Amino acid sequence: MSSAAVTVTRRPSECGAQMMHLIEELYPICRSITGEGCRESLRLLQGIVPIEMHEIPSGTPVFDWTIPREWNIRDAYIKNGRGERIVDFGRSNLHVVNYSRPIHATMSLDELRPHLFSLPQHPDWIPYRTSYYSENWGFCLSDHVLQQLQEDAYEVCIDSSLTDGHLTYGELFLPGDTHEEVLFSCHVCHPSLCNDNLSGMAVASFLASRLRERPHRLSYRFLFVPGTIGSIAWLSRNESRVPAIRHGLVLSCVGDSGGFTYKRSRRGNAEIDRAVAHILKHSGKSFAITDFSPYGYDERQYCSPGFNLPVGRFSRTANGDYPEYHTSADNLDLVSETALEESLDQLLAIVNLLDKNKTYINTNPKCEPQLGRRGLYRAMGGTPDARPLELAMLWVLNLSDGEHSLLDIAERADLPFAEVSRAAELLSEKDLLQNKLAKTG
Amino acid sequence: MSSAAVTVTRRPSECGAQMMHLIEELYPICRSITGEGCRESLRLLQGIVPIEMHEIPSGTPVFDWTIPREWNIRDAYIKNGRGERIVDFGRSNLHVVNYSRPIHATMSLDELRPHLFSLPQHPDWIPYRTSYYSENWGFCLSDHVLQQLQEDAYEVCIDSSLTDGHLTYGELFLPGDTHEEVLFSCHVCHPSLCNDNLSGMAVASFLASRLRERPHRLSYRFLFVPGTIGSIAWLSRNESRVPAIRHGLVLSCVGDSGGFTYKRSRRGNAEIDRAVAHILKHSGKSFAITDFSPYGYDERQYCSPGFNLPVGRFSRTANGDYPEYHTSADNLDLVSETALEESLDQLLAIVNLLDKNKTYINTNPKCEPQLGRRGLYRAMGGTPDARPLELAMLWVLNLSDGEHSLLDIAERADLPFAEVSRAAELLSEKDLLQNKLAKTG
Amino acid sequence: MSSAAVTVTRRPSECGAQMMHLIEELYPICRSITGEGCRESLRLLQGIVPIEMHEIPSGTPVFDWTIPREWNIRDAYIKNGRGERIVDFGRSNLHVVNYSRPIHATMSLDELRPHLFSLPQHPDWIPYRTSYYSENWGFCLSDHVLQQLQEDAYEVCIDSSLTDGHLTYGELFLPGDTHEEVLFSCHVCHPSLCNDNLSGMAVASFLASRLRERPHRLSYRFLFVPGTIGSIAWLSRNESRVPAIRHGLVLSCVGDSGGFTYKRSRRGNAEIDRAVAHILKHSGKSFAITDFSPYGYDERQYCSPGFNLPVGRFSRTANGDYPEYHTSADNLDLVSETALEESLDQLLAIVNLLDKNKTYINTNPKCEPQLGRRGLYRAMGGTPDARPLELAMLWVLNLSDGEHSLLDIAERADLPFAEVSRAAELLSEKDLLQNKLAKTG
Repeated sequence: MSSAAVTVTRRPSECGAQMMHLIEELYPICRSITGEGCRESLRLLQGIVPIEMHEIPSGTPVFDWTIPREWNIRDAYIKNGRGERIVDFGRSNLHVVNYSRPIHATMSLDELRPHLFSLPQHPDWIPYRTSYYSENWGFCLSDHVLQQLQEDAYEVCIDSSLTDGHLTYGELFLPGDTHEEVLFSCHVCHPSLCNDNLSGMAVASFLASRLRERPHRLSYRFLFVPGTIGSIAWLSRNESRVPAIRHGLVLSCVGDSGGFTYKRSRRGNAEIDRAVAHILKHSGKSFAITDFSPYGYDERQYCSPGFNLPVGRFSRTANGDYPEYHTSADNLDLVSETALEESLDQLLAIVNLLDKNKTYINTNPKCEPQLGRRGLYRAMGGTPDARPLELAMLWVLNLSDGEHSLLDIAERADLPFAEVSRAAELLSEKDLLQNKLAKTG
Repeated sequence: MSSAAVTVTRRPSECGAQMMHLIEELYPICRSITGEGCRESLRLLQGIVPIEMHEIPSGTPVFDWTIPREWNIRDAYIKNGRGERIVDFGRSNLHVVNYSRPIHATMSLDELRPHLFSLPQHPDWIPYRTSYYSENWGFCLSDHVLQQLQEDAYEVCIDSSLTDGHLTYGELFLPGDTHEEVLFSCHVCHPSLCNDNLSGMAVASFLASRLRERPHRLSYRFLFVPGTIGSIAWLSRNESRVPAIRHGLVLSCVGDSGGFTYKRSRRGNAEIDRAVAHILKHSGKSFAITDFSPYGYDERQYCSPGFNLPVGRFSRTANGDYPEYHTSADNLDLVSETALEESLDQLLAIVNLLDKNKTYINTNPKCEPQLGRRGLYRAMGGTPDARPLELAMLWVLNLSDGEHSLLDIAERADLPFAEVSRAAELLSEKDLLQNKLAKTG
Repeated sequence: MSSAAVTVTRRPSECGAQMMHLIEELYPICRSITGEGCRESLRLLQGIVPIEMHEIPSGTPVFDWTIPREWNIRDAYIKNGRGERIVDFGRSNLHVVNYSRPIHATMSLDELRPHLFSLPQHPDWIPYRTSYYSENWGFCLSDHVLQQLQEDAYEVCIDSSLTDGHLTYGELFLPGDTHEEVLFSCHVCHPSLCNDNLSGMAVASFLASRLRERPHRLSYRFLFVPGTIGSIAWLSRNESRVPAIRHGLVLSCVGDSGGFTYKRSRRGNAEIDRAVAHILKHSGKSFAITDFSPYGYDERQYCSPGFNLPVGRFSRTANGDYPEYHTSADNLDLVSETALEESLDQLLAIVNLLDKNKTYINTNPKCEPQLGRRGLYRAMGGTPDARPLELAMLWVLNLSDGEHSLLDIAERADLPFAEVSRAAELLSEKDLLQNKLAKTG
């Protein structure tokens, strides 16, 4: 259970390799929504940042749901009449339907067939299937193998256990200057699937690590939770903290080579929605923005009508939009150092924007102040174009009437937020701007 | 005056033929804004549904207008010097300018010419002209005939009468569970013109007949009125009923083979505007949506600023947009069973939407409820896509915060209303939704 | 200083020639933000309209700025070792960096070079450069001449003076029926540059002249100010008048052959923004509408957040968008009678719209009034299309509910304002409309 191999360096260019290395360590572990696989994975992440581990007992009610029994598995196989393992959990943990109850029996192919799942359209891939809340058992296998099965007496064994235990999740809180917080949430329940969502786990961990190195105005909370039941459990146990959440992102599928995809929050025009759109627009990368829908990952819970939190989802290729999704082909080849690092870079830019997005008041609102005598404007006039920083200063002065945040200004001026933010800093130094008192929420 | 030939069957597929049959019976009658033709037509419609006939005496003030004298006509012709009827009312009632005063005189071509109307761009068609509010007389004829007229002594006869009498209109009210009502209005004043508006009279009658067969939440009012003066008269005599009108449609030109045209109400974004747009969008048929303008049919009156009712206009090819409009070519060949039946189908879908469009409240708003244990969600997880009904249920749960009607939800989810409505019924059965008390208006 | 050559005729078609003549007279004068050139120019404009001249002493604080010392210049040159004037202010006043301090010295090419400005991309043109607020001196010359300079002892002379004096600006107020006013502002500080902004000065003068000839509801104020410091000075001295400004336009670059460019006010949807867009849309001319930005001419000051006035900018090709901008090629060839007159015509149409844009109330709001018996509607019905004026009357009646101005109606009806305005006059004559009391501001 050593995590010594993964340490965060301060050289950002090595982050991609380190995230990839972390994913390689996480890949073989058989995770589920409860059980040892989840704990082992969180312990590996603790090698990056000091995530706190929480345990909730089976049977605990969480809103309309109940924490299920804990599932663990040691071995599983299907043997043919000759005693050969034709399906073997040891070769891929996707072979077992996740949360399968234990079974050990011999049966005919006809009896076995309703418990077998394959993907005829991708005959070499093993699908990923689950049966968390309906007791069942099953095997997933390539369609190629399935088609070769003949009438035989099959020995079927799933050496799993479903017992009272706990649901485990990880949490890391990085306090800032204010209690207003940004939530990052990623699901940690999928077994050997890399993009979905070892990529999210790795990028969230390294994002947290980078944030720990720097001062920040906002507080940041990272959740590493099993999908659906984990976010429901966290919300159920932390209702009093919910009002402090000002912005949030669900991180998933951030390691593949596709363009970025941002799925808006239910609100649709929350600051996080505008912030991500702004950063992606100025990123020079290809991207798509999609509207909220109540299907997907844990944004379903954060954006349920009783919470309606400003939480969007940040991905590269969205779930379901790549053929390898939820199959054995979502493996180490599907994710790359470059893609992980690009995702981290965009998230750092988003965090920078959220942290610096304030509303200022122009202290000299009647006509322009004379920037030239303060050394902020060129002395020689007559040239046709404003210099970019001068233009950014003029925009900030013009719109800093207490009604426009720096993001509002960057959007209207169609300038990168970083340029507008730098202009605001220069003007503040000359007392031409003052900070509008932050609205308390 | 028998209407026995037309009875409403419960087999919808026969409605088209029945509507066509009704139009064939109505076609020869010479209607105007007052007179026997109007009464005879309404009596034919009473064979379909029990329309109540109303009579308003000539001279009665209705807002800025006055009910005109009643016009009736028995015969009309132009004879040439040889006594031949070169224009004969008996061949087409379009030959006489509607509301022509009586005349019997002999005159030269030069004297006659200012009273003759033709369509040079369609030399074989007879135009339709009226002179309701300015006493005059005239004949409409094909340009082909007009061009052949030579100097002669013409005997001109219009055996009409303009006498104190009544304006006649029909009304049918189908009470529902609430006093909130939907208004359907069609003009019944045009003589031998099929699409404009025997089609509207037929479709309105059969729509009413179908609604009588089923329970409905809203009340429905059908008006069969002469254009302009009829809707003005109804509004003038029923001001106290106006506040109950929640939605409305003027029906005209619904029998031709063109795509559907919906003209928005003056409000532009009323529920009726959104409902029709939604149904047409999901109809699989071609359609166009146009903005309100104060030119057209009786929507001019319903949408006058003193009423500003949410009344749009439902047509196939809009008035003025087909060359046969207001000519003898708007005959039985221009309308078809199929087109009439398609129009009826869309109107039934619109009525269904209006009747079922309610606002619900999710009784379990914090996170999703566990649909699986209620048998509303598939047991096996991992497949990439939600099933359509599951997706509709998730949308209904997510947006049923008391601020979104089912139509709001269908629009945002881009799902057919019927699917969303079915999802709401299933969730209501499991007590996951409750009805928000209807706003009283 | 005679302006006798320029008199305003009542024949509009001669306005273009008269404006061109005025520009020819103004062209040779060396203007700056202060000094005799400015005064001499304003005196020429006084030949058109009785502009009042204002003087503000050097050293007067105006908001964050201070009125600078007055700059005047008599001669300037660079002589080579043979005593030849290789750069001569007498040939073009652009040769001297505007506001250059006096200097008389002999220096090497290396010493001289930092004070020389050219345009390598346009080697035959002299650039226009200024150094108002940072004491400096310099020469502008064609790159062609600059490249031929050789090592030599250069005699450099700028016979200018920077002394306590005054800033001069012109103002003309044309009172109307109400104290609500329209502001027209143009900058008068540029030396021999025709489009920027002798064109604006000429068009503003003739617009004022035409307005003096006719009654007008609104008051009109014309400002002829040096750029930036002039508008700041006016605003500083007239804060109490600012609330009466309902609409405004900065006029610049209105004489070239390009299409029209309207730059919206900071508000973006002010009545002036909509009025100009409407007039240009129906002008039949090519045009572009651009969003506000805090870079440009005096709209920077009028639209500063402390004032946020509804002031846009009306130009043909916008500043910086034509290659001749701020160079000696912005000469008499760049502007034309036709272009100046077209600009004046559009401004007159805009003024007409602003002056006549009122909100009426339909006195007969329930259903349409019977236009026919008032002679406002054709007697013969049945033709497919409304006549344009009838349609305009129907729109005015339909939307005159006290919530829509005539411009609102023209926009929604997509009809020219003049047609809608004429319809409103006809309806008012028949007492079908009454004037909604003007909102007091």
